[in-house]
Amino acid sequence: MNSFPNSIIDLIEAFSRFPGIGRKTAQRMAFYVLKAPINIANQLSESIINMKSKIIFCSICNGITENDPCNICSNPKRDQSTICIVGEASDIYTFEKTSSFHGVYHVLGGLLSPLDGIGPEDLSIERLLSRVKSNFELVIATNPSIEGEATSLYIASLFKDETIKVTRLARGLPMGGDLDYLDEATLMRAMEGRTLL
Amino acid sequence: MNSFPNSIIDLIEAFSRFPGIGRKTAQRMAFYVLKAPINIANQLSESIINMKSKIIFCSICNGITENDPCNICSNPKRDQSTICIVGEASDIYTFEKTSSFHGVYHVLGGLLSPLDGIGPEDLSIERLLSRVKSNFELVIATNPSIEGEATSLYIASLFKDETIKVTRLARGLPMGGDLDYLDEATLMRAMEGRTLL
Repeated sequence: MNSFPNSIIDLIEAFSRFPGIGRKTAQRMAFYVLKAPINIANQLSESIINMKSKIIFCSICNGITENDPCNICSNPKRDQSTICIVGEASDIYTFEKTSSFHGVYHVLGGLLSPLDGIGPEDLSIERLLSRVKSNFELVIATNPSIEGEATSLYIASLFKDETIKVTRLARGLPMGGDLDYLDEATLMRAMEGRTLL
Repeated sequence: MNSFPNSIIDLIEAFSRFPGIGRKTAQRMAFYVLKAPINIANQLSESIINMKSKIIFCSICNGITENDPCNICSNPKRDQSTICIVGEASDIYTFEKTSSFHGVYHVLGGLLSPLDGIGPEDLSIERLLSRVKSNFELVIATNPSIEGEATSLYIASLFKDETIKVTRLARGLPMGGDLDYLDEATLMRAMEGRTLL
């Protein structure tokens, strides 16, 4: 049996390491690079190196940026006393797309997960404590998963005795959802959190 | 609204160009590279350039190789008079994995597709004609799609007056398939091509 030339195998293996990319997709990707004009391949290769060298972490919010502090932290129009706490830097852009939040962010760099050995000391909690001053609002926007809920409760417990307002995103029906297809946990939360019309 | 830093956008766009990779997957891939150690990123970047510079096309079969002629064409144990005709170079390795074919291959570099403007002059048909000698067997192994069938009929028509045996892969039930879920075209072909037990 003959298999692919070594240089293709190397690339297939490199692509297979990506999350959500299986062997077959990695193979299709490698053949796409093989067939693509040389400038497309050069551009891809350079984009990887370029991104790795340019992206740094914002010294205030721990988000990703090319200039420190990031565009959001250094924007005087943003409300510096309302901090939205997210798990990953990519979550910032999910909120920015909605244009519904005018405060600043704080990236934890993960979520509490004792099974994976991730404790409070692995997240940027110290830096959060040093940023928060009295009369601030913290909006906890971690994923509605077990790890996200645990992280959310842990952060809330750090600020419970102070003048700081700690909120979290509403739980309920997603827009466009169908009651028939929603899970029980979501329906329970939607019922518990019902609002006056 | 703030969006990702430019160097990440460049990389997300480069990944989005891959077949089967949507914007969301490209974004996850870019963040994977961002979080990965620098040596993983360097290795990926180098694998791309390395593969593009090392892979050449075999001057005999048009398959991909790092040495010309390729390992299959230059292997004296392979039957040079049985040529399996495939659409793409990657198809060779699909057959090699089964270890069921001991002849050699010929890569067309595509399939006839008048709607996409791909005619016989775009495929390596001239080279195939020059390789085939009398008493050869040609096994046409193009995809069982409209383009594959058209290509198969076209190639067969080129050799119909000669001593050359032109065969194609059997059509029928896939192993492990379920009659309930098979399409009518496959069932028709399986019935037409029934064999003696």
